[in-house]
Amino acid sequence: MNRKMVFYMLGQILKLEAGIMLFPLVCSLIYHEFNIVTAFLTTMAVALTLGFALTLLNKPRNKTFFAKEGFVIVALSWIVISAVGALPFVISGEIPNYIDAFFETVSGFTTTGATILSNVEGLSKGIAMWRSLTHWVGGMGILVLVVALLPTDSGRSIHIIRAEMPGPTMGKLTPKLRDMTKALYLIYVALTVCEIVFLVCGDMPLYEAIVHSFGTAGTGGFGVKNDSIASYSPYLQWVITVFMLLFGINFNIYYLLLVGRLRLAIKSEELWSYVGLFFGATALITYNIYNMSSNFAEAVRNAAFQVSSIMTTTGYATTDFNLWPGLSKGILFVLMFIGACAGSTAGGIKVSRIILLIKRAISSLKHTIHPRSTETVRFEGKRVDNDTLTGVLVYFAIYFICFVIIFFILLFEPFDFETSMSAVAACFNNVGPGLSLVGPIGNYGIFSNISKIALSFAMLLGRLEIFPLLVLFSPSIWIKKRAKA
Amino acid sequence: MNRKMVFYMLGQILKLEAGIMLFPLVCSLIYHEFNIVTAFLTTMAVALTLGFALTLLNKPRNKTFFAKEGFVIVALSWIVISAVGALPFVISGEIPNYIDAFFETVSGFTTTGATILSNVEGLSKGIAMWRSLTHWVGGMGILVLVVALLPTDSGRSIHIIRAEMPGPTMGKLTPKLRDMTKALYLIYVALTVCEIVFLVCGDMPLYEAIVHSFGTAGTGGFGVKNDSIASYSPYLQWVITVFMLLFGINFNIYYLLLVGRLRLAIKSEELWSYVGLFFGATALITYNIYNMSSNFAEAVRNAAFQVSSIMTTTGYATTDFNLWPGLSKGILFVLMFIGACAGSTAGGIKVSRIILLIKRAISSLKHTIHPRSTETVRFEGKRVDNDTLTGVLVYFAIYFICFVIIFFILLFEPFDFETSMSAVAACFNNVGPGLSLVGPIGNYGIFSNISKIALSFAMLLGRLEIFPLLVLFSPSIWIKKRAKA
Repeated sequence: MNRKMVFYMLGQILKLEAGIMLFPLVCSLIYHEFNIVTAFLTTMAVALTLGFALTLLNKPRNKTFFAKEGFVIVALSWIVISAVGALPFVISGEIPNYIDAFFETVSGFTTTGATILSNVEGLSKGIAMWRSLTHWVGGMGILVLVVALLPTDSGRSIHIIRAEMPGPTMGKLTPKLRDMTKALYLIYVALTVCEIVFLVCGDMPLYEAIVHSFGTAGTGGFGVKNDSIASYSPYLQWVITVFMLLFGINFNIYYLLLVGRLRLAIKSEELWSYVGLFFGATALITYNIYNMSSNFAEAVRNAAFQVSSIMTTTGYATTDFNLWPGLSKGILFVLMFIGACAGSTAGGIKVSRIILLIKRAISSLKHTIHPRSTETVRFEGKRVDNDTLTGVLVYFAIYFICFVIIFFILLFEPFDFETSMSAVAACFNNVGPGLSLVGPIGNYGIFSNISKIALSFAMLLGRLEIFPLLVLFSPSIWIKKRAKA
Repeated sequence: MNRKMVFYMLGQILKLEAGIMLFPLVCSLIYHEFNIVTAFLTTMAVALTLGFALTLLNKPRNKTFFAKEGFVIVALSWIVISAVGALPFVISGEIPNYIDAFFETVSGFTTTGATILSNVEGLSKGIAMWRSLTHWVGGMGILVLVVALLPTDSGRSIHIIRAEMPGPTMGKLTPKLRDMTKALYLIYVALTVCEIVFLVCGDMPLYEAIVHSFGTAGTGGFGVKNDSIASYSPYLQWVITVFMLLFGINFNIYYLLLVGRLRLAIKSEELWSYVGLFFGATALITYNIYNMSSNFAEAVRNAAFQVSSIMTTTGYATTDFNLWPGLSKGILFVLMFIGACAGSTAGGIKVSRIILLIKRAISSLKHTIHPRSTETVRFEGKRVDNDTLTGVLVYFAIYFICFVIIFFILLFEPFDFETSMSAVAACFNNVGPGLSLVGPIGNYGIFSNISKIALSFAMLLGRLEIFPLLVLFSPSIWIKKRAKA
């Protein structure tokens, strides 16, 4: 393993994190929160010291690396930025327990939006901004940002991007990787700015508009109010509903639109399945909660908002869906697992994987009936090769094995079945709120430290799509390293 | 499709069912339950009339058939015997609603043991015996019995047996199929008789010993008491614990023991994983429920009984495990899915499939780290080919797709999350009792007719391992048939 390269990249990441913290730092200055400014400055000092130490001591002579290093870099980067990103919460005293702060930061970067706080309104402006900014940065990917910004493109960065980008396969947008990552970030920034404008037009204060746009863009779910989005006007709720949906779409589609290939963009099977799921689920839930709502418009609005929020794994709420009837709760629970499109900022198993899974199942069934026929699976107009299909099946299997293991750890808590299971589902799929005690008005502060660490791990597993983190557990990674040292 | 052959086999199955009913008929006679005798006689007349009509009208000139026909025969047979087997319940008036009776019969043949009855003790002896006998017949397989008894061996019966036998692959016991099915039934009868003897030695009345041995052998779970096995002595509870475990073992192992190949039998990975799971789960639950028990012996006994009952998917209970803490309930819930060994009478995904799934996942992970290495998966000392591995992955995927669909239907009921989810789990995995409202002291009578039909379908899906039933939904099966007619 190219150990120097791994540490070098970790150093770069830490320097970048210090740079990102300038944003909430300025925010704290504007609001005269000087103790928060100190917290950020201290953290930035730590990040820069560590960052420069790592890059200077590990200047790699050999910049080549492979898939293995890609996985290790991604996994360690996410753990390290969360570990350092938790410091402002602790230093400012707003989340004194480090494990809690780590959980909150992992929840931020992984765009989960699960919180241990019972009173979000008690946070300072700077800290709340940092919390929301982690969503924005984590949504598109930290290493995507590094590749886009820093001159580290050794022609091997593809291994990093591939390890960080969600989805069963990676669509290549442009031949050059740095151009691609820059295009992705440009689309991302443009959409975020659009949302800020729409929210400000609806009389949301600029600060809140920025916080919520960051939360929506990363499909995270951190906000500034204890009741999430419930107290905002119907217009603002609809704006957020639409933008959550937009950020759940594969960014390749926007790229195709941008370069004028409308027809190709519109033919996407994943897109239409995603839109179909949204409308289907919204219709069913509207029908189911109509009796509980004061009028039809409210029922549709609440249904659409919650469906959009859960299927894009954002986790904002305009109502306590924990009080909804079983059918609606069940639909939301299933949507948590499906998630949104691959190549978006959303979590979950991803619509494209589900489509491939179903198509593969049908082809097996056909093969059973006609053993001599050869069934090919087609997706987005192309024949899907067997490796990709098997990859999806293996992902699904590993997903459930990991799910059961983390569920098992949570079983040691004295909570009910629905709480434990939905907590794992909500964290693993990067949704945020679950059902029962961890529903929209509950929080994750009820869990023990061990469970919080297990759930943090679940969030990272979900965001990085399992493999990078599991690679860390492989003895061969570490044994070889020692042999080289 | 060889339509005549399908109908011919269905006819044979119905004649066999009439024959099997002689057993509870005699039982009713012994206990002077003459209205029950009438119910059985009427049903037998119906079964024989239909059976002879089908066999005489469809005398097949061409006895060849293939995998497709195998699946269709198995799927239709199980539906037809359940439909006819439900008649005694309705005619006797003990379960007046036909849907309820159908649910109960499917639950019997699929060895699920889920009941819609709130008062089992109110059943007549003959009906209770029939209910339990369906477990015994369904456990080893109805078509296995047909192949063993009737001279229909056209050299193609392997397609039927393969469609009916549970597990990822079929171990070949003896070169000749009829000899194999006979060997299986001999082992099955011998073990059942052993259990009857052990139970009678513990002062259980002969009638109850037979009913419970049938229930244990098929890993079904129907009994004669409302509190299941709770009121029996610790000795009897231990006997049933051990026999449930024994019937959850792959019958190939017994065959190997019988022919003196002890070493081969003892080396089975699946066997040791199964035994390991049993002891691990029992230890954890004992620790977890120790405070709730009057002494250590009781804690161990209850833990071992419930673990054995749930993991073999039998469903007997000696205590209301619904009142146990979350950890114990969670362990039982996970065990429901795992099930016992392939090639046994038990349900669930099967230990061997779980082992293959985990091994496949690990090999994928290794491949990710060392892309150029070729990883082979070994199981039971042999190299597993890729088709089998992909088959297991596909099975797992289809399993979850079906699970979600049936769960979805149940969501329309006004019950809690735990009830709906555990009801599907308990039916799909052929366990019987679930958690919350369908726990050991609850019953499935609370559900609507639509849900009962969906759950009946889930039980059949679980018992026949999905494929045969789904083949029925393929239009090509029916369209071709019409073309030939």
